[in-house]
Amino acid sequence: MKYTIKQISEIIGGKVLGDGNLIVTGVSSIENAEKGDISFIKNERLVSKVLQTNASAVVSHRLIEESKKTFIITDNPFLAFIKLLKVISDNKQQRPRGIHESAVISNESSVGDNISIGTNVVIEGNTQIGKNVIIYPNVFIGTNCKIGDDSIIYPNVTIREEVTIGDRVVIQSGASIGDDGFGYLQIKGKHVKIPQVGTIEIGNDVSIGSHVTIARAALDKTIISSGVKIDNHSHIAHNCIIGEDSMLIAYAKLAGGVKIGKNVIIAEDVGITDHVEIGDKCMVGAASNVYKSIKPGSVIWGSPAKPITFEKRLQVLIKKLPDIYRKVKGL
Amino acid sequence: MKYTIKQISEIIGGKVLGDGNLIVTGVSSIENAEKGDISFIKNERLVSKVLQTNASAVVSHRLIEESKKTFIITDNPFLAFIKLLKVISDNKQQRPRGIHESAVISNESSVGDNISIGTNVVIEGNTQIGKNVIIYPNVFIGTNCKIGDDSIIYPNVTIREEVTIGDRVVIQSGASIGDDGFGYLQIKGKHVKIPQVGTIEIGNDVSIGSHVTIARAALDKTIISSGVKIDNHSHIAHNCIIGEDSMLIAYAKLAGGVKIGKNVIIAEDVGITDHVEIGDKCMVGAASNVYKSIKPGSVIWGSPAKPITFEKRLQVLIKKLPDIYRKVKGL
Amino acid sequence: MKYTIKQISEIIGGKVLGDGNLIVTGVSSIENAEKGDISFIKNERLVSKVLQTNASAVVSHRLIEESKKTFIITDNPFLAFIKLLKVISDNKQQRPRGIHESAVISNESSVGDNISIGTNVVIEGNTQIGKNVIIYPNVFIGTNCKIGDDSIIYPNVTIREEVTIGDRVVIQSGASIGDDGFGYLQIKGKHVKIPQVGTIEIGNDVSIGSHVTIARAALDKTIISSGVKIDNHSHIAHNCIIGEDSMLIAYAKLAGGVKIGKNVIIAEDVGITDHVEIGDKCMVGAASNVYKSIKPGSVIWGSPAKPITFEKRLQVLIKKLPDIYRKVKGL
Repeated sequence: MKYTIKQISEIIGGKVLGDGNLIVTGVSSIENAEKGDISFIKNERLVSKVLQTNASAVVSHRLIEESKKTFIITDNPFLAFIKLLKVISDNKQQRPRGIHESAVISNESSVGDNISIGTNVVIEGNTQIGKNVIIYPNVFIGTNCKIGDDSIIYPNVTIREEVTIGDRVVIQSGASIGDDGFGYLQIKGKHVKIPQVGTIEIGNDVSIGSHVTIARAALDKTIISSGVKIDNHSHIAHNCIIGEDSMLIAYAKLAGGVKIGKNVIIAEDVGITDHVEIGDKCMVGAASNVYKSIKPGSVIWGSPAKPITFEKRLQVLIKKLPDIYRKVKGL
Repeated sequence: MKYTIKQISEIIGGKVLGDGNLIVTGVSSIENAEKGDISFIKNERLVSKVLQTNASAVVSHRLIEESKKTFIITDNPFLAFIKLLKVISDNKQQRPRGIHESAVISNESSVGDNISIGTNVVIEGNTQIGKNVIIYPNVFIGTNCKIGDDSIIYPNVTIREEVTIGDRVVIQSGASIGDDGFGYLQIKGKHVKIPQVGTIEIGNDVSIGSHVTIARAALDKTIISSGVKIDNHSHIAHNCIIGEDSMLIAYAKLAGGVKIGKNVIIAEDVGITDHVEIGDKCMVGAASNVYKSIKPGSVIWGSPAKPITFEKRLQVLIKKLPDIYRKVKGL
Repeated sequence: MKYTIKQISEIIGGKVLGDGNLIVTGVSSIENAEKGDISFIKNERLVSKVLQTNASAVVSHRLIEESKKTFIITDNPFLAFIKLLKVISDNKQQRPRGIHESAVISNESSVGDNISIGTNVVIEGNTQIGKNVIIYPNVFIGTNCKIGDDSIIYPNVTIREEVTIGDRVVIQSGASIGDDGFGYLQIKGKHVKIPQVGTIEIGNDVSIGSHVTIARAALDKTIISSGVKIDNHSHIAHNCIIGEDSMLIAYAKLAGGVKIGKNVIIAEDVGITDHVEIGDKCMVGAASNVYKSIKPGSVIWGSPAKPITFEKRLQVLIKKLPDIYRKVKGL
């Protein structure tokens, strides 16, 4: 990258204090910045770091006079810096437009304008790819799928038949969408497969992490609503329904038929038993296991999950067990 | 899909009550059915749903007179409905027979009759593929492997050298079979790799979920017996042996040399320490960690795992800790 | 394989006692050996197994006279046997040298001498591949990467742009290196993506397991130091730093910005909260969750993690809760 401070201020807004013609060649955290970098601080608490940084320019909420840096001053420096990062990221990931000659796309399928379809991509019959979609190499997309506009699919992703994906969806590498749900009927000690003939519907602005698996429904649909963000290694079993703008951090383990409301936050490594319902705006702490449905707005933690204040109290008391035991031993 | 009720009754058995010429165009759960769908109920408990459903036809254990639906009556409606689902699923997943021109198959390898080998599939030397096998695009199969008849391998699966797989095995997308086990010898603070030269033997009717990893043995064999079902994100380390018809639900984490008996059920997210043995017909509850071998027929839960009734009792008592503490504080 | 005992002794050292011309055709554990195999015992404790084994030859620390086997005697039989395994493993995995005609490598990229680049491999622009590197089929490597000499990359691996990898690094199948970290800013109930423009730096002699994900930094670098071994299904989030010769067993779950010192051992299925620091030579027990930073040399276990002796004491006392409760009930 190579920008003048003036160019950056045109990207991110804010007021330049210092040398608008200064050229910066990198972005960095305030701690690890080198000469030539532009960095940022989120708030007043980090002002001291500006005095120590090697960055040549800093995006900040105010001028820090003791520093000789060039500043761009803006009310929300983090949000402004994100605008710059977006431009850099988009540049880094620019892909050739068109369809690579090695890609194999069914004649019965359609692709929108301005797409980028990479090496060895396979798109099977009756599938529609929206405009501006970027598909990296080695991706497989089955029959009767729909990928919305401006979506990005990274390498080695599998999307099986009859999956509908909205606009601006990002799928990180190696994710698997549309595999069979794990449904068996036990008959005399043998597991008889329940064929999984349902589908998957994914809304707009969804983000799906690396190595996430989303299983097709047994019947009906598995639903990921708009705005949902799913982190790496998570597992959404058949017939789950996830409400708008919920966030599932890494290793979310949703068994079959789990329903998650809107604006829920599921921390890392949480397991949720089949058919449990988590109400809107709930928060579930890391490494929890949820065996029962939870009312909207609850904040729970633990294994089994409990109201968070109760769980914290129990964790304190468990550490007092040696003391408790000493006292009751003689009774 | 498009079937008359009469055609469906020929597929699933049962007695038609109502219009045998009625055409149905979809399958659905009883709750989400639309006009034109056929659905089912498992048992008497769900009879009320039939009165509310929009389904045009219902597979049921008895006539529900108040409803004006067309019925197919059979003793085990769920099992009958599965027969219909199997036909629908097989139709949806029909693949072109033959070998795609982009597939690269060693001349030293052989493929059976009526196979379907997809785009970009790689099959290296001295490997045998049975008849009716379906291999989806972007699958890699190494040297000296054997894949049994009627098996299905979904996209982006890796099967490394010297893996033997039985008949009717299904491997969901992105699974990795045959990677090196994680074996190191510590010498003066460095980890020296123990080369993993063993193999893997997988029986008949095994199902392997998406993103499952099965490591080759260090020496000898990692063994997955016939009828075993392994759910997504599970990890079978080197030299594990899993007995017939056992079921491992998602995120089963088996360390090296674990032995699991026959007809065992391992619930979601269970960790088992290296060389532990789990006897036949054991059940291990969700999120358990098993550090010691377990006798046949045991039902265990918790971390560390304990007999399930004891674990449940402890979970109740842990919630009483505030009460217990209050009582002993003054002692 | 086919070696005389004399040839093997030339590979592994040691003194032959018995028939140096004996031909062995397999390696095996002492328990499962068949006629024609060579096996080994680690130490005196396993001497009795030599009397029962079917192996034709045994590598041992001493002659076991009662046995009629041929022996190779050496101080450290396990380490000697590893030398033999290494030769066998290398032979099994020999790859054709050169670039497969289906591989698509950018003209702006370079490859070293004696490389093996497999079917359907994609290497994008301005990337350097060192000498003797083996890249299996269906691997994707993005722009501006560097892969050091003698590294091995197994099938279906994704390495995205700007990842630097050292010498002798082994990456098992299906791993994803360089995906975006999971960084979002919450604005009015919506999750706004923080573009992830940092990179990843991986040292020498690193081993990365199957289905491991290593996220690129938001800014700056995610760092995996030399000698680190990471087992299957682990997740290294953005901006983590892992010190030299640390070992992360399966399902290590490192949230953003975690720092791990040198020679640390993280057992299976451990979660570590964002920005926590684990000092040099710490050991973290299986299934632990670490929410706070830990001093060098600590040995911790549990969820939340505690000093291991305290955690063990608490586990004993939790099992005494029925007893404790009985005693205090009447108070």
